[in-house]
Amino acid sequence: MPSVIVAGASGYTGALAARILHRHPGFDLVAVTSRSDAGRRLDDLYPYHRVPMTLEELDLDRHGDADAAIVAYPHGAAAPVVAALRERGVKVVDLSADFRIRDVAEYERWYVQHPHPELIHDAVYGLPERYREAVRDAGLVANPGCYPTATVLALAPLAGHIADVVVDAKSGVSGAGRKLQDSTHFVAADENVTPYGVGRHRHMPEIDQELHAAGAPRHLRVTFTPHLLPLDQGELVSCYVTPSAEFGEDELVNLFDDMYAREPFVELRTGPVGVIDVRDTNYCRISWHQDPRTGRIIVFSAIDNLWKGAASQAVQNLNLMFDRPETEGLL
Amino acid sequence: MPSVIVAGASGYTGALAARILHRHPGFDLVAVTSRSDAGRRLDDLYPYHRVPMTLEELDLDRHGDADAAIVAYPHGAAAPVVAALRERGVKVVDLSADFRIRDVAEYERWYVQHPHPELIHDAVYGLPERYREAVRDAGLVANPGCYPTATVLALAPLAGHIADVVVDAKSGVSGAGRKLQDSTHFVAADENVTPYGVGRHRHMPEIDQELHAAGAPRHLRVTFTPHLLPLDQGELVSCYVTPSAEFGEDELVNLFDDMYAREPFVELRTGPVGVIDVRDTNYCRISWHQDPRTGRIIVFSAIDNLWKGAASQAVQNLNLMFDRPETEGLL
Amino acid sequence: MPSVIVAGASGYTGALAARILHRHPGFDLVAVTSRSDAGRRLDDLYPYHRVPMTLEELDLDRHGDADAAIVAYPHGAAAPVVAALRERGVKVVDLSADFRIRDVAEYERWYVQHPHPELIHDAVYGLPERYREAVRDAGLVANPGCYPTATVLALAPLAGHIADVVVDAKSGVSGAGRKLQDSTHFVAADENVTPYGVGRHRHMPEIDQELHAAGAPRHLRVTFTPHLLPLDQGELVSCYVTPSAEFGEDELVNLFDDMYAREPFVELRTGPVGVIDVRDTNYCRISWHQDPRTGRIIVFSAIDNLWKGAASQAVQNLNLMFDRPETEGLL
Amino acid sequence: MPSVIVAGASGYTGALAARILHRHPGFDLVAVTSRSDAGRRLDDLYPYHRVPMTLEELDLDRHGDADAAIVAYPHGAAAPVVAALRERGVKVVDLSADFRIRDVAEYERWYVQHPHPELIHDAVYGLPERYREAVRDAGLVANPGCYPTATVLALAPLAGHIADVVVDAKSGVSGAGRKLQDSTHFVAADENVTPYGVGRHRHMPEIDQELHAAGAPRHLRVTFTPHLLPLDQGELVSCYVTPSAEFGEDELVNLFDDMYAREPFVELRTGPVGVIDVRDTNYCRISWHQDPRTGRIIVFSAIDNLWKGAASQAVQNLNLMFDRPETEGLL
Repeated sequence: MPSVIVAGASGYTGALAARILHRHPGFDLVAVTSRSDAGRRLDDLYPYHRVPMTLEELDLDRHGDADAAIVAYPHGAAAPVVAALRERGVKVVDLSADFRIRDVAEYERWYVQHPHPELIHDAVYGLPERYREAVRDAGLVANPGCYPTATVLALAPLAGHIADVVVDAKSGVSGAGRKLQDSTHFVAADENVTPYGVGRHRHMPEIDQELHAAGAPRHLRVTFTPHLLPLDQGELVSCYVTPSAEFGEDELVNLFDDMYAREPFVELRTGPVGVIDVRDTNYCRISWHQDPRTGRIIVFSAIDNLWKGAASQAVQNLNLMFDRPETEGLL
Repeated sequence: MPSVIVAGASGYTGALAARILHRHPGFDLVAVTSRSDAGRRLDDLYPYHRVPMTLEELDLDRHGDADAAIVAYPHGAAAPVVAALRERGVKVVDLSADFRIRDVAEYERWYVQHPHPELIHDAVYGLPERYREAVRDAGLVANPGCYPTATVLALAPLAGHIADVVVDAKSGVSGAGRKLQDSTHFVAADENVTPYGVGRHRHMPEIDQELHAAGAPRHLRVTFTPHLLPLDQGELVSCYVTPSAEFGEDELVNLFDDMYAREPFVELRTGPVGVIDVRDTNYCRISWHQDPRTGRIIVFSAIDNLWKGAASQAVQNLNLMFDRPETEGLL
Repeated sequence: MPSVIVAGASGYTGALAARILHRHPGFDLVAVTSRSDAGRRLDDLYPYHRVPMTLEELDLDRHGDADAAIVAYPHGAAAPVVAALRERGVKVVDLSADFRIRDVAEYERWYVQHPHPELIHDAVYGLPERYREAVRDAGLVANPGCYPTATVLALAPLAGHIADVVVDAKSGVSGAGRKLQDSTHFVAADENVTPYGVGRHRHMPEIDQELHAAGAPRHLRVTFTPHLLPLDQGELVSCYVTPSAEFGEDELVNLFDDMYAREPFVELRTGPVGVIDVRDTNYCRISWHQDPRTGRIIVFSAIDNLWKGAASQAVQNLNLMFDRPETEGLL
Repeated sequence: MPSVIVAGASGYTGALAARILHRHPGFDLVAVTSRSDAGRRLDDLYPYHRVPMTLEELDLDRHGDADAAIVAYPHGAAAPVVAALRERGVKVVDLSADFRIRDVAEYERWYVQHPHPELIHDAVYGLPERYREAVRDAGLVANPGCYPTATVLALAPLAGHIADVVVDAKSGVSGAGRKLQDSTHFVAADENVTPYGVGRHRHMPEIDQELHAAGAPRHLRVTFTPHLLPLDQGELVSCYVTPSAEFGEDELVNLFDDMYAREPFVELRTGPVGVIDVRDTNYCRISWHQDPRTGRIIVFSAIDNLWKGAASQAVQNLNLMFDRPETEGLL
């Protein structure tokens, strides 16, 4: 059974990855590491995950022997760890943004100077519904951002036919991470809703890149605005597409069915979509509607930002990389 | 001091109107009526409003002597009550949709057969920031819907320059009213977010009408989608405008300042806008952003759906109709 | 593999029982029934449970062939269904109160006239930590109430030494069930906390009965007050015990350890206990504290009211009744 | 018109005091000060309070000229500021614990070394319902803690007849203050309920002191346990009294009525009490129940922890100290 570590397991997504792997019949979780909380029990920090392990400092000599690693470091800090693990032959799923953007200049425009640009082109973008076969063969998988996951899954079936698109995204507070901030104090977030990162959220270039890869016209730039909502977990993206041609309803049905009918983790629905429906799961639930008044196609896509938007999608990728059933440990 | 009644005071908006009027130095609240809860104390039904009055059956012989009425009945049921009160010379602010839509055919397309179409053209649309002078002289004011209030205030400064617009709206659960429904059960709404009324919400034609009145091109049809959020009160509309021409930032500043700098209840802000900032107030808080990537102008507008979106705006209208200071009882 | 039905699967606890059994490797869930929602898909009513079955009318001819049933009917309505299933030889776990109270007169004082008093003494009280061996041999298990589960587990180690006890209980809104009521409207429950059923909650005689069975003095009557909190699931009971004798800390450690050290679903903790720690699990998490100022022993006990407080405990009982590993399907 | 400053206006209670005073017709709010946020606009930090003032460093030369001050510093840090203001003749309401405990040794047992013990006996405990006349003449008022306010008001009518009492308290998250802590992160507090400070909360000696002052036997020690709930504001205390004698219902009615019938801010109710009923007000709402099973008297008391539990009670005290109507600015 392949051994796996989670590096950076004291944050929300790393801890959840540890929980999923701890119960996974196909992997052996051998270590959880943390820079800030080494020495603490993970089940003390996150009682509800019930992972009876102690957080350690990352030690490449020891941890470099693992078969696989999920790395949950902040962007910029992740790349050196990933590089070191790759050097030792460890297969890596990286939850940071460091290897998601193919164009180094574009990455550096939105993030920081890239510490390991030479690795970018070894990385596969870990959205299995788009890159399943490449993920199987990958040594390094760049796990998608939560908003790009929900958005690209919503729009990929239409990508070749999008003249313009507005994406209004809503996320629970866990998306902002465990770090203490004024905006995530209960009193600030409760009974409130507020946009943030307007016009400058780093998931925009990632969404653009993947819509282009799915066939969207090169000049397309998404209008993307996230909002913070008073709930723990859950993310809904509402996508307003101006199509480049008219569609009959049957054509739309076919576009979505063709892409997703056999996908184990995509649920097409005709009625309303709520984030509670996918809470604590790896599912992405999608519904779409045509607005005859305006000709727009509206696509709703709901995920759990910590699961399909991060940790469980990472395990879905690991399953593929190690020839396990894709849904193992995730149902 | 003018006497005023609230007809339909057992619902959320009627009860709140009663609370505001009960404390108002310029009006004498003489009766609160209810079809379903006559005989009950209003301060038993809504302890937090502290209105020490008993709900009565509406009795036109008695209540028709009042100088003014706020009517908070459902659409269709409101018009006959309004007509009867108007016949007796009572000045009315109607919280229903019955007199908002100028075009009877359009009203009947979205609602029901209109019981009193002859009154529509006596009615003034009660958005003081747009129709202040007409409201002063009105005998019948059609109080705007909550979404139209927030949306029209957000977009009016740009109306003449809108080529296309997507409005993504988010509302707290009180917007769905006091009636028991599966969707407003705590367990259904908590930790959830879901779109509703997609492509068929009745506030769309109202928004279109008022954007046209503000100068938007006749062919413009808004794409409007509301979402239900896990909070009590508060409404945020995020408006994505494709302008018909390019704007410099100064021009935008001027457009908004010219319209709102002297408005007592519109707050222009440059930073983020949260619904908590306007909770339990008659304020509408607006901020706008230009997105250089796409050329779009994004306008955020936050109100309290029960206050500026209904009850306190009704009192703002009453203040105007009775020559009281516009902000009286509302600060 | 034993076949099992859930009768009354459209309520919160029945639906959750169906979800757990649908994924359980040791049982074959063959039918889900409902009086009010027959014909509807369970995964339409509860998308997040993902049970791809259609609710049926209960049909004893067909459903009476099952090996086991979980019955989730209201009290009074449950007993006849249970009796009919028992007659056909079906092993039953009943989620109602109908077979929990050993003393018919006491049952009838708090509930209704008992439809099948003759079955009461066949029933085993389904708190496995107290009656494990009896449950193994039972044909009819009366699944405990949520508050009695948390309270009896908290107090059983001390039962013989309780001079007096106050139990202050706090529950999420799902405890009030799916039925629409004013008190469970989101707007009523959100941002609120309120006591209910003060001095007359039906779980009181059940708690008394089980404390007596655990060794409490016959004259002991619990003071029990539940409160409704603004959360979905989760229940905390805070028990204030006046002991009949002084205890050293070691004695207390031993009392709790002796009873629970080998229990798979009881977690003893020394620090604070939060309901989030046991959310969506069959665990009961307990901590206790001595207050030297007053001599009181304070015991906190947290469960998920829908899980250990109802549906998952029912499955724990089923596991015992069919010689499955006690934790199967529940970790 | 007396001039007043708020020292420490960047925390929740100081900012709210500033809001109330800014709208108060009888006081002139001349300055708001902050150690951490001097230079920031108060309406930037707390938009919803709409106090258009800039936070300043406390400057005794200037601010010492004010007629009155509300001091909202942490315990230990408050006393020196209070002493300096008193020296300059400023009347002070202190929101900290520094002058609440009459017995210096007891204060130092629970808090820190007292910086100004000589002032303790000049201070009046600012619970107007208990010490109204003394407050009128006071130069220094020690504003009660939130839990003592709710608890002492609940129990004072019974104080002479309490053999024993358990107080189970529930508070919204704002009670923990604005400081960032793990426990007040939205993700930690949402959907959770947890006890804290078990057996060592600093409000216990304050409650004991005031129950003794109200006539409770000297040996009485309250068992007091607070719990953190997922709401912003609001506090409910559930008091379980073992009376020293039997009471008829009429006697109880009289005890409570005699004490509170003429109190402007105490509401006696017979039905359930919810914290939402007193949100954003200076009211304390109390109901009591006799439990014939156990002989206990259960008293529920609800306040808004930031209002009657802190800032608005401070203004109620200021009104008394400056001969203003007691309810001015508070209805």
